[in-house]
Amino acid sequence: MPLLQISDGELRRRRATLLERVSDRGVTGLVLFGANNVAYLSRFHFISTERPMALVVTESTSALLVPRLEGEHAERYALVDAVHTYPEYPGERHPLEFLKDILVELGLGSATIGVDSDGYGRIYGYRGPRVSELLPEAKIETIGDDIEHMQMVNSEEELTLIRESARWGNLAHSFLQEYCKVGLTETEISMRASFDATQAMIRTLGPSYRGGGRSGAHAGFRGQIGKDSALPHAITSNARLQAGDVLVTGAGADVDGYGSELERTMVMGEPSKEVEKYFDLMFQVQTLAMDTIKPGIPCSAVAKEVRRFFDEHNLWDNWRHHSGHAKSTLVHEAPFLDIGDQRIIEVGMVFTVEPGIYVPGLGGFRHSDTVAVTEDGIEMLTYYPRDLKSLTIPIS
Amino acid sequence: MPLLQISDGELRRRRATLLERVSDRGVTGLVLFGANNVAYLSRFHFISTERPMALVVTESTSALLVPRLEGEHAERYALVDAVHTYPEYPGERHPLEFLKDILVELGLGSATIGVDSDGYGRIYGYRGPRVSELLPEAKIETIGDDIEHMQMVNSEEELTLIRESARWGNLAHSFLQEYCKVGLTETEISMRASFDATQAMIRTLGPSYRGGGRSGAHAGFRGQIGKDSALPHAITSNARLQAGDVLVTGAGADVDGYGSELERTMVMGEPSKEVEKYFDLMFQVQTLAMDTIKPGIPCSAVAKEVRRFFDEHNLWDNWRHHSGHAKSTLVHEAPFLDIGDQRIIEVGMVFTVEPGIYVPGLGGFRHSDTVAVTEDGIEMLTYYPRDLKSLTIPIS
Repeated sequence: MPLLQISDGELRRRRATLLERVSDRGVTGLVLFGANNVAYLSRFHFISTERPMALVVTESTSALLVPRLEGEHAERYALVDAVHTYPEYPGERHPLEFLKDILVELGLGSATIGVDSDGYGRIYGYRGPRVSELLPEAKIETIGDDIEHMQMVNSEEELTLIRESARWGNLAHSFLQEYCKVGLTETEISMRASFDATQAMIRTLGPSYRGGGRSGAHAGFRGQIGKDSALPHAITSNARLQAGDVLVTGAGADVDGYGSELERTMVMGEPSKEVEKYFDLMFQVQTLAMDTIKPGIPCSAVAKEVRRFFDEHNLWDNWRHHSGHAKSTLVHEAPFLDIGDQRIIEVGMVFTVEPGIYVPGLGGFRHSDTVAVTEDGIEMLTYYPRDLKSLTIPIS
Repeated sequence: MPLLQISDGELRRRRATLLERVSDRGVTGLVLFGANNVAYLSRFHFISTERPMALVVTESTSALLVPRLEGEHAERYALVDAVHTYPEYPGERHPLEFLKDILVELGLGSATIGVDSDGYGRIYGYRGPRVSELLPEAKIETIGDDIEHMQMVNSEEELTLIRESARWGNLAHSFLQEYCKVGLTETEISMRASFDATQAMIRTLGPSYRGGGRSGAHAGFRGQIGKDSALPHAITSNARLQAGDVLVTGAGADVDGYGSELERTMVMGEPSKEVEKYFDLMFQVQTLAMDTIKPGIPCSAVAKEVRRFFDEHNLWDNWRHHSGHAKSTLVHEAPFLDIGDQRIIEVGMVFTVEPGIYVPGLGGFRHSDTVAVTEDGIEMLTYYPRDLKSLTIPIS
């Protein structure tokens, strides 16, 4: 059976590793509010709303505080020693007073506590105190950078889930390509492809499959159709496909919160010379970026190679964004393949590789592949065809 | 032609109102980072990523700072006097240095500046300075509560967009109900209903229609099927519908960022006596909550009536959450129909009304309607049938 979620053992190792990592600052307890951090350490996926949730971790135990309405959900899915609930927010007693009780009971009332943020944010109308206000005798250390760094480097289990995601993103993309026809609209093509891929995915994987957010696979265009493909983040406008359109796509799937990013430039009908030229340049610069990535060099070194290519080919008018970002459980993650990011690339990091070339009036040219850093370069996690011939959609 | 976006005039009035509202604190310029706040004052919808965006507003002008890749998008859609771009984040120069330039150029270098937050958040790996660090001679006032209060009270234009949303949520829900059949899975029913409603919506409204986020209409179950309907926020698990299942649904649509919330309890086949009993109690308590809402009373007064009903009918084991929340452009908004919310209900506020009754082993019972507060009570914005007969799905 395919691995479809992070194992209990790995979740426990993450907690021990994080505690060990911050022990030199005297931290003996952790409080995490961020949904991504809570899921990372407990497998409990939730959407942050005005009702705060918090995960508490010490060397010997763990506890999750959730609103009453999430109680059964947390009991069922979270790997924690105890689930505590508060009635409601705003409620009669502030949720963070319940958190204070838990911390005091665990003997952390005057301890050094590592937090991802000092209190829950102003989300959907929430207001509340900082942890440092709840426990004036405790010492509060921000450990957000530590957990973020751990999240940057993926284990074999994490890579397995990202590969699983890539598989279903690939299927969604192949449906997307197949359904592209002159005269059809963006939303009908993308919704149909996402529907068919999701149905295949959940039937294939069976009931032990769960996404972290919206389950299933998806593929679409985000408005990047025809001339609008020159807008890197165009917003869906439901364009109708026409002969000659350049399309920029996106596909992926959610496996226990892990994702992948697959984007392709496709053309409706035989490409013009102009389209061929820019497609070829994009193909070259993406290949260059992929060939450059390896452990031990700074992220900026990849960006520098890409920028040298833009210099050489006089493409700066067509530049819009950096060459990629880390990718595991969020849409975008640090570090970035950007001239300003001096962090060192490590084995186990996963990046999108997606330098783009945007030509106003003609279209946008961007592939994005998700790659894992290995000892001597990269492993391609996405594997959809990249060449122009494969991505040219015949029109009759 | 139906109104499909907030007018320029209203956007300008919002800015003037907000500036006037905070003028007693000496504020002469505003800096907004929150996506919801930027859209509220400029009609520019974006998804917050590691690339910060900021809207600057003074009495005489307005400016939007976006990353280069959002430049054309902002020029096309944002109602602002100037769009400024920075190359990229992290980039060679920090994006907020560009913001500083704009503020200094507008003469705000040592002014009193109202901000929704003192800097952009730690989103997707972003790190950066506070506005107060950028401009040490300026005085920074947090005006998040002021803009939030403005957002709580909806204008006639806003109500029109929410009514438009409710119309398409209604269609999506009627497809959802029609497609429910024993043996079909959650995802195939909900994706098909969302697809059909979205296609009808975008064809009917034409090219001037735009959503703020993902365009179109949607309807689904979020896992609340059969016994799992007793989990108020179950996560999609792709259950297969069975005879006797209690279903709790959700539907809505996005119109220029405005939404509505329609939820219904439905039953697969003739309801049992037990199901009938809890459905009826839920129907009664929702009606009671709707009848209680009026301007001039605190939000808690509605919650108190609901709680009195739970007392009377000995239902506390089945209570999971408060009775509703404000609703316009976010999933949930303040204020809340909650015992702990003493804010006064005002004409123009829009609430969901959704006290729920959850019976482990049997199912969940919750309708949610979106209502606008009027001079003498409420206007129902959602209008799907609420009675058990209409919501019983025949099985053959």
